[in-house]
Amino acid sequence: MCEKTASNKCFEGTVEQYSHQSDVLNCKMSFTVFRPASKDSSAKLPVLFFLSGLTCTDQNFITKAGAQREASKHGIVLVCPDTSPRGAGVEGEDDKYDLGTGAGFYLDATEPKWSKHYNMYSYITKELPELVHKTFGTDPQKMSIMGHSMGGMGALAIALKNPGVYQSVSVFSPIANPTAVEWGQKAFTVYLGDDKESWKAYDPCELVKKYSGPPMDILIDQGLDDEFYVGNALRPESFTNVCQEEGIQCALRLHDGYDHGYYFISTFVSDHIVHHARYLCE
Amino acid sequence: MCEKTASNKCFEGTVEQYSHQSDVLNCKMSFTVFRPASKDSSAKLPVLFFLSGLTCTDQNFITKAGAQREASKHGIVLVCPDTSPRGAGVEGEDDKYDLGTGAGFYLDATEPKWSKHYNMYSYITKELPELVHKTFGTDPQKMSIMGHSMGGMGALAIALKNPGVYQSVSVFSPIANPTAVEWGQKAFTVYLGDDKESWKAYDPCELVKKYSGPPMDILIDQGLDDEFYVGNALRPESFTNVCQEEGIQCALRLHDGYDHGYYFISTFVSDHIVHHARYLCE
Repeated sequence: MCEKTASNKCFEGTVEQYSHQSDVLNCKMSFTVFRPASKDSSAKLPVLFFLSGLTCTDQNFITKAGAQREASKHGIVLVCPDTSPRGAGVEGEDDKYDLGTGAGFYLDATEPKWSKHYNMYSYITKELPELVHKTFGTDPQKMSIMGHSMGGMGALAIALKNPGVYQSVSVFSPIANPTAVEWGQKAFTVYLGDDKESWKAYDPCELVKKYSGPPMDILIDQGLDDEFYVGNALRPESFTNVCQEEGIQCALRLHDGYDHGYYFISTFVSDHIVHHARYLCE
Repeated sequence: MCEKTASNKCFEGTVEQYSHQSDVLNCKMSFTVFRPASKDSSAKLPVLFFLSGLTCTDQNFITKAGAQREASKHGIVLVCPDTSPRGAGVEGEDDKYDLGTGAGFYLDATEPKWSKHYNMYSYITKELPELVHKTFGTDPQKMSIMGHSMGGMGALAIALKNPGVYQSVSVFSPIANPTAVEWGQKAFTVYLGDDKESWKAYDPCELVKKYSGPPMDILIDQGLDDEFYVGNALRPESFTNVCQEEGIQCALRLHDGYDHGYYFISTFVSDHIVHHARYLCE
C-alpha cells in the first residue's frame, strides 16, 4: 500500500509522489513517478527506473532532468526512488554526504549496524517494482533501468545481476569500478565489512565478467570536465574495457566541457529515453 | 561589473550565474544566464528575459523549466534575474512570502521605507539589460520578455510600458489585473502607498488601455487547475478582454488539469521560446 502525497500534471501525464512503509528498509519511503497519458487505460505500460546519485532524493531527477517530455512521447512510466533509507536512526548515518542517508549505494548491507535498514538492492529490485506494478499496472516484462553517479553504479550492477529482467540499461557518469576507488571502498567497508571478495557482488566491472544472459546494449554518457571523472573516481573506461573483453555491447560517449551535474544530464537525457524506448516500446 | 560565480555547460552552451552590486537596488544581486553556443563569436545574440514569481530566485526557471534545449536551438540568450533585492535590511521584508524578499513585484517603490531598495522596475528595464549587453555583447534591438505569476505581471507591464523595446512578450499564469486582487492591492499599498491612481502604472489591464506602439503578439498559458486561477487571483481573462477592446493581439491558452507550478511551465516552455524566436531570430 502506498499513499499519493503530490500530483502535478506534466506533458499531458502526471508527476506523482508516493509515500509507503518499506518492509525491506524498515522505514517510511517516498518515490516519485511520471505517468504518461495513456489512450488505453488497460494497457500495461513499460517502466524505466532512475537511480540518483549521492545526496539526491526522489525529486532531483524529476524536477531537473527534463525527461518527462520524451517519456511522454514514448509512453514510458518513470520511477524515481530515493537514494537510501530515511530516518532509520542508525548512529552516524547523517554525518557524511557519501555514507548513510542519501548514500545507500544500492546494496544490501551485511554489517549488523546497517543491515536492518540499508537494503536498497532488495528495495529497488524486489519491493519497489512489485509495488509499482501493483499500483500502476505497469508491465513486469518491460522494465529498464538508468542512473547517475552512485546510481549509475547501481543501475549497471542491478542490470548485470538480474539477466533478462531489465530490457536495457543506461547511465550518466557512473561510479563504474567502486572497489577500485575511495568512494566505493569506504562505503563497501562500512556496509559489507572488510572482506573484499564480498564487494565484488556490487562492482559493475566484476559483474560483467560473470554475466550470462541475453545480449546487452549499454549506453554511458560522461562529461570530460566532471571533477570526479578527472579525479579518477568514476572510471567508465575500466567498465567499457571489461565489456569489450567479454563481448558486451557498451557505448561510452565522452562530452567535452560537461560536468557531473543536472545541466549535463538534461542535455543528453532524451537520448537515453530513446535508447530505452527501442527496447521497451517495440 | 559583474563576477561569474558558477558556470555549467548545458545544451552546448553554458548556464552561468553572476553576482554584481546593483546601483538602483543598493545591494548585491545575482542573476543567471544561459548563453547558447555561437558559431560566430562576434554575432550579437538576441536576449530573452524571464521574470520569476513569488518566492523564486534566479535559479528556479533555469533548473526546472527545461528552456535551454529550445533556446540553444534558436541561439537565444536567456536571462533570469532575481525577484527582489536581497538582504536590503528593510524592517519586515522577510516576514511574508508575498511582500519584501522574493516579492519585488517589478515596480519602483515610492514609499520611503522601501524606495531605497525596492526598485525592480528600473533594475529590470535599465540596469540589468545594460549590464547584460555590456557583459555578453547581446543585441539591444533584439530583446524579449516572459514571466510567470508575479513575473507574468511584470513582463506584461514592462512590455506595455516600453513600446518597441521588447520584440515579443509571453507569460504563464500572470497576475494580470493586480489592482483588482488582494496580492496586488497588498503589495501596491505597501510599495506605492494608498493612492490607487499610482497603482495603475503597473497593472497590465490599465496599461493596455494606454498602449501606443508597434503591434504586439502576446501569448498567455494558464492551467485550469491552478489554485490561484480558480481563486480568481490571476484573472487573465480581464487582460484578454481589454486587449480585444483595444485591438491588441493576445492568445490565452487554457490547459485542462495543469496547476501553477514548474511542471506546467516545463510542458509549454518550448512553445514560448518558439513564439519569441519568431520575433528575435528573423
